[in-house]
Amino acid sequence: MPAPSEFLKYIDGNADAFIKRLAEAVSIPSISGDARHRKDVFAMADWLNAQLKSVGVETQLVDLGRHTMDGEDLPLPPAILGRLGNDSSKKTVLIYGHFDVQPALKSDGWDTEPFTLTINEQTGQLIGRGSSDDKGPILGWLNVLQYHHENKLPLPVNLKFCFEGMEESGSEGLDDLVRRESQKGGYFDGVDCVCISDNYWLNTRTPALTYGLRGLSYYKVTVSGPARDLHSGVFGRTVHEPMTDLVHLLNTLVTPTGDILIKGVDEMVPPADEEEKKIYEKLDYSISDIEQSAGASIALSDDKVNVLMGRMRQPSLSIHGIEGAFSAPGAKTVIPAKVSGKFSIRLVPPQTPDNIDPLVIDHLKKAFAELGSKNTLTVENLHGGKPWVADHRHWNFEAAKKATKAVYGQDPDLTREGGSIPVTLTFAESLGVNVLLLPMGRGDDGAHSTNEKLDRSNFIEGSKLLGTYLYELADIQK
Amino acid sequence: MPAPSEFLKYIDGNADAFIKRLAEAVSIPSISGDARHRKDVFAMADWLNAQLKSVGVETQLVDLGRHTMDGEDLPLPPAILGRLGNDSSKKTVLIYGHFDVQPALKSDGWDTEPFTLTINEQTGQLIGRGSSDDKGPILGWLNVLQYHHENKLPLPVNLKFCFEGMEESGSEGLDDLVRRESQKGGYFDGVDCVCISDNYWLNTRTPALTYGLRGLSYYKVTVSGPARDLHSGVFGRTVHEPMTDLVHLLNTLVTPTGDILIKGVDEMVPPADEEEKKIYEKLDYSISDIEQSAGASIALSDDKVNVLMGRMRQPSLSIHGIEGAFSAPGAKTVIPAKVSGKFSIRLVPPQTPDNIDPLVIDHLKKAFAELGSKNTLTVENLHGGKPWVADHRHWNFEAAKKATKAVYGQDPDLTREGGSIPVTLTFAESLGVNVLLLPMGRGDDGAHSTNEKLDRSNFIEGSKLLGTYLYELADIQK
Repeated sequence: MPAPSEFLKYIDGNADAFIKRLAEAVSIPSISGDARHRKDVFAMADWLNAQLKSVGVETQLVDLGRHTMDGEDLPLPPAILGRLGNDSSKKTVLIYGHFDVQPALKSDGWDTEPFTLTINEQTGQLIGRGSSDDKGPILGWLNVLQYHHENKLPLPVNLKFCFEGMEESGSEGLDDLVRRESQKGGYFDGVDCVCISDNYWLNTRTPALTYGLRGLSYYKVTVSGPARDLHSGVFGRTVHEPMTDLVHLLNTLVTPTGDILIKGVDEMVPPADEEEKKIYEKLDYSISDIEQSAGASIALSDDKVNVLMGRMRQPSLSIHGIEGAFSAPGAKTVIPAKVSGKFSIRLVPPQTPDNIDPLVIDHLKKAFAELGSKNTLTVENLHGGKPWVADHRHWNFEAAKKATKAVYGQDPDLTREGGSIPVTLTFAESLGVNVLLLPMGRGDDGAHSTNEKLDRSNFIEGSKLLGTYLYELADIQK
Repeated sequence: MPAPSEFLKYIDGNADAFIKRLAEAVSIPSISGDARHRKDVFAMADWLNAQLKSVGVETQLVDLGRHTMDGEDLPLPPAILGRLGNDSSKKTVLIYGHFDVQPALKSDGWDTEPFTLTINEQTGQLIGRGSSDDKGPILGWLNVLQYHHENKLPLPVNLKFCFEGMEESGSEGLDDLVRRESQKGGYFDGVDCVCISDNYWLNTRTPALTYGLRGLSYYKVTVSGPARDLHSGVFGRTVHEPMTDLVHLLNTLVTPTGDILIKGVDEMVPPADEEEKKIYEKLDYSISDIEQSAGASIALSDDKVNVLMGRMRQPSLSIHGIEGAFSAPGAKTVIPAKVSGKFSIRLVPPQTPDNIDPLVIDHLKKAFAELGSKNTLTVENLHGGKPWVADHRHWNFEAAKKATKAVYGQDPDLTREGGSIPVTLTFAESLGVNVLLLPMGRGDDGAHSTNEKLDRSNFIEGSKLLGTYLYELADIQK
């Protein structure tokens, strides 16, 4: 059953209003990883809740309790549960999204204010933190619902919603909720499949469906020594400097070409056979796509399959930065007293935070012991999530393939993605149903980066895609 | 000629007012290394200029032009030149100090607001940025002058003053001024000796005179690649990551025990013979003094002479931090696009920035080439200064020794210091006269660190010492 043509026209006809609503959403700096912005995550929950109600969704805010972040006791932002439709003859689809965002400061290198949605009329880009990750996709669903609500039309399927505000900080509190509500009699009981729109096309031209995600294990390794920061003139070459120790530790983690040096991590993943390599050869993706998306010719290899496997079916280790050292412009001659290196490992099956943690901790302890330093080492796992792979021949994926063909006129790429949405696995495991990742944005959207954007056409055609997917779902043989 | 006992009483009697004036000086955040605070450095120059005039000093503000800092074109703060007394039968002493300070934020780990002078009545500590480095000592001179001005007493020597506002950022603009004014007919023509109070006792109990300083060469090594920050899920193990490259470069600089790995740097310094080692054995200083001052048992060695030589007569390399990487609390899964490591080398004779620069740049270029990275490397020397050693048997030092004995009742330690005051060498070379470093603060003052302080007794007895030194100078045989 194709989507009604009136629906497609409605989306086109209301595009400007939809973009205005996206600007409202972006203007709320709902940064979950920064305690100072916790109130904004709450404000964002209230805003989204009101929007959902206005298009007929029956909602509830679920208190997820409190947690400790950087030594501060904080209330967790609520999850928003919602439902619309309860026709036992229809399939029931659970939709997930997150309304929190990554940190962003103009001084990080943004060309525009990160929390002011800026429309570039020439390129059609809608620029702002959260535009693509993940406020744009959530608002895509609102657009679909608004059409049906205004026209008093029933949806072709029953919908349930689960929106959270801690995705960028390890989805704290959500796993318990999902597991609880997935049990018999729970809020999610009776769900037939799940759809998550929180990732990206592989390139900038071919829609994609995603059936795999890497997991994540995020570490904070701290070296502390002096009771306070020291003057490098007075103390240089008299004491063990924490920053020197930390640099030596970080140096033992990964090679400049991406090989992970922590014993056992790379080795845990079986190599791809020739058949698996063919999957990567087929993808509409090239080294130049990656380099265009990164903005520089810095791919680790000239071999497309190697580079794509590096992203999709191999673990990776990135060093994100150092907390506690001198980080401002200019020159400060300080010996920092306590420095924390932040790095994370993206995981692929059979890796999990549980089987990777001991390898990382053991490695760092041994490497630190070898330094012969009198400073003190601590290692923390800040958050993590397991990797996930789904069956891309399931009817949930088939409906999305038809919808993609209908809206975009082409078959989607079938991809595994390098990023992590840990809750994907929680849904799959708790509900025992198929989970589809149906991305709205393009590969160059710059999620987690400066100048994050969503193309206007992806927002508008993407809204059509989400609606069309629901109509295709209604029709398809379970 | 000892100082008049009325002078000593006056200093004691006005101690509270002197501390109040220090609080005023500390409240101006005259951070020279941060463009946003440049206006405060100008405000501090105006404040000090007014203070000098109020105690009878004839002053002038010298425009030092403009400079570029982190890509921004900025006016340099003025130098303040001053003079008091012009009696050809008296010696003429040039006094130097700086009214700019290091950066400081409460969030760096200060227990109190860094720009609010906080008096700990129990310990007698005056806590605040610049209290010891270098506003306290400058105000010590003001205290001496105020006594003579209020009592209409001539000073025992002629004074000339040179105060600058860029010391913490390489004393930009000052060298040219000092060289120009040291010529015949210049402002400093006729100066017999120089006194600089901008360093610290070796310990917390023994006054010191300092006859040597290490030089400095400060580097910014930048690795850039992507056009913008990238998501580590999307790009991890597909591109060369600048942060990985930078960590590998920083790892090649120095060992955890302080040995400099840049070829030729350590090797340039001749080893100490047994006689020289005896100088260090005699100093009133122990490993536990260093560790108490650092607040932790982290000395590089259990051998006092080794540790003291590491500070005084060996170069040191400290890694201060990284600009452009993730530095906030929390977890951000970013691949930073452009990261700059900041490190500096403290120099000892015969090292100079000129002969060290090529070694550092060559080393980094070679090390980067070995990484096989497609990213881009740049190396900048942000600022530097040569090391300096003076004759500690000169009459300028003898007068200071007598003054120390008179005020503190003990002989001073004769030290070489690990820090850098590049202008010391400029004065010595330009004027061809002896330069004395006469410290006011203690070894645990925490200059450049969090919770910088000056002990009340050091401020008050130190003011007496500065005045007494002038009286001893007047008397001593040239």
